[in-house]
Amino acid sequence: MKTLTELGCNAARAKYEIQGLRTEEKNAALEAVAAALRAGADEILAANESDLKRGEQKGMNSGLLDRLRLTRSRIEAMSEGLLQIRQLPDPVGKVLETISRPNGLVIEKKTVPLGVIGIIYESRPNVTADAFGLCFKSGNAVILKGGSDAIASNAVITNVIRRALGASGITEDAISLIEDTDRSVTREFMRMKQYVDVLIPRGGAGLIRSVVENSTIPVIETGTGNCHIYVDEYADLDKAISIILNAKTQRIGVCNACESLVVHEAVRERLLPELAKALREKNVEIRGDEQTTGIIDCIPATQEDYGTEYLDYIISVRTVSSLEEAVAHINRYNTRHSEAIITENEENAGRFLDQVDAACVYVNASTRFTDGFEFGFGAEIGISTQKLHARGPMGLRELTSYKYVIRGNGQVRE
Amino acid sequence: MKTLTELGCNAARAKYEIQGLRTEEKNAALEAVAAALRAGADEILAANESDLKRGEQKGMNSGLLDRLRLTRSRIEAMSEGLLQIRQLPDPVGKVLETISRPNGLVIEKKTVPLGVIGIIYESRPNVTADAFGLCFKSGNAVILKGGSDAIASNAVITNVIRRALGASGITEDAISLIEDTDRSVTREFMRMKQYVDVLIPRGGAGLIRSVVENSTIPVIETGTGNCHIYVDEYADLDKAISIILNAKTQRIGVCNACESLVVHEAVRERLLPELAKALREKNVEIRGDEQTTGIIDCIPATQEDYGTEYLDYIISVRTVSSLEEAVAHINRYNTRHSEAIITENEENAGRFLDQVDAACVYVNASTRFTDGFEFGFGAEIGISTQKLHARGPMGLRELTSYKYVIRGNGQVRE
Repeated sequence: MKTLTELGCNAARAKYEIQGLRTEEKNAALEAVAAALRAGADEILAANESDLKRGEQKGMNSGLLDRLRLTRSRIEAMSEGLLQIRQLPDPVGKVLETISRPNGLVIEKKTVPLGVIGIIYESRPNVTADAFGLCFKSGNAVILKGGSDAIASNAVITNVIRRALGASGITEDAISLIEDTDRSVTREFMRMKQYVDVLIPRGGAGLIRSVVENSTIPVIETGTGNCHIYVDEYADLDKAISIILNAKTQRIGVCNACESLVVHEAVRERLLPELAKALREKNVEIRGDEQTTGIIDCIPATQEDYGTEYLDYIISVRTVSSLEEAVAHINRYNTRHSEAIITENEENAGRFLDQVDAACVYVNASTRFTDGFEFGFGAEIGISTQKLHARGPMGLRELTSYKYVIRGNGQVRE
Repeated sequence: MKTLTELGCNAARAKYEIQGLRTEEKNAALEAVAAALRAGADEILAANESDLKRGEQKGMNSGLLDRLRLTRSRIEAMSEGLLQIRQLPDPVGKVLETISRPNGLVIEKKTVPLGVIGIIYESRPNVTADAFGLCFKSGNAVILKGGSDAIASNAVITNVIRRALGASGITEDAISLIEDTDRSVTREFMRMKQYVDVLIPRGGAGLIRSVVENSTIPVIETGTGNCHIYVDEYADLDKAISIILNAKTQRIGVCNACESLVVHEAVRERLLPELAKALREKNVEIRGDEQTTGIIDCIPATQEDYGTEYLDYIISVRTVSSLEEAVAHINRYNTRHSEAIITENEENAGRFLDQVDAACVYVNASTRFTDGFEFGFGAEIGISTQKLHARGPMGLRELTSYKYVIRGNGQVRE
């Protein structure tokens, strides 16, 4: 097992090789890796089986076991994901701007890879291949720290990828996995600033918080979503109900699911009974404020409810008497992810879109659209909830930085 | 004196007001603030006098006292700086991209302010006005933590700005200053993630390191520059000497000054004697490797020299036998700021520009051009040496983020 420092050094060396690869070389390697994953399915499934056994012995619940489980079709999907990334445009080497200065200097602003990207993630082993594909196509080396539950699966997937890279004549250190599952190693990893340019945590709120608290490497926060839908006094209530149902129940465990409703008092009497009926049919528990419990039969909401990302069949409801109050409530409790207003009033829509602080703000659509594929960007490494560097769906383009290239013929500064 | 939490709350409230200001309102306020600084010169100079007295009593050296000193013409320059910022285009509300999806959703990617920007800086009090101007024009509230040496000057400048804002009908909390000079307060400030969106340290390497180590707020590192000039085997040596002299001596205390030379062995015998003569005329001390001390009379360089940003009349020299060796040396020791190659060979220039990892890479020009004004961008808040968010000169545009604004008519996800 390599030490953390060895992994860091190797990745930092590999980044210089990878950043110089031509698009065709990267695409050919992605194709080779995709084929290797398909060919290595038996090996991967065997390793996954041992992870699953350990998980069962530990008493993991069925939801977690399902996240951990690989099948032939899931491996096929990982492979297919790499082929899709191959098709996406290469984000490296794009000239964003050219400036000619009066003194004759010509300045080009040009996209470059970030360098070495660290990714800390939880138990889904398919992230191993996805993260590699996105980092590699954008010219970066990646160091992965997966969850200990998936360690055997991740190790085999990483090895399959490394072998395929080696066979393609590309440095295997384009991807490496930290196999030591000790927590102290993760903390040390977060401070390897001399080797790692950016750290992206993918997982629950606890993981993200721990990385933000402990990392000295610049972090991109992803994926916590306490998303609201505000039903304005000028809402079309049929649209409201269909959008709320979709945003809450189409998939409950995802960061862009709706967790909380804000309802204008002018429509609450008409909206809530019908909405409650529809939500109950989908087994959604409602936790409402005093006004809500006065209209429908539901559990009283606490302050804590408004700050909770349930990721479950639960939704909180808060009533307000103005758009301002709705915006203030949302800006207080949201996680800057995805927020929606349902209204037929253009002015109110505009104020909501301007004033709510979030990566994605919607009018009359489900928050579930916050997704790289739904936006037409292709695969994503995560949804950024911070304002620095990238916001919202992060794809290949967001895995690059830029440099200024300046050409002169002897210019000096006066 | 307000508590840190009060300052944070006020700024977090103010950001929503400032982000909605029209360009004309912001420009009028900048003009009013510029006039107020000029009108308040006596008050500012009196406060500065007390800072200077305290500094003298503490035995501050003349360089530091000069950084701390304000004069009528320096206040005039602060005022003029704000008027220049007023002229720059408003970076907020620009639509960077519009995407129409097959399902009818229209997605706009639109620039927005970062929110609340924290700036921690050392003893130059003019930063107070400059930082306010840039943050305000880009729609952000700013919380400043200046050096304790300049506390009286900073407090008066901040008050003058706040009064002028108030008189313009704009929230005074667009700018606030942390007046408590206790170090524990600075540490607490760096963890005020709930109020501050981005932290920008401006100052020496020690300050930057401390902020990176302790902050839980996303940080943009600025301003440490261990910048190299590589004299290639195909260099025009006259150009080389004139560029090196400029980059080393035109202004020694700045982050884009040259601190280290890398010289190809094919030109060292011809270059070094003449260069040494020219540098000595400017009182520059040379610290060279074994090959260098074999050619010219100079102090032997240690490993530590190669990693040192002198900010002084000292330069280190390392000889290499290839471009690869030069690139490897630079990538090992540089701070990702500004790096130059002197060569008449296009291919070598291209390899250097591609392979050296820095915000700004030059061919045949002085590193001293890394500057917002020299690039034609206008005033800057600093030179970023990290890859996340912004790299190189950071002006108004780099003080914004973006949001996705999505308009639908009832779309739900399948």
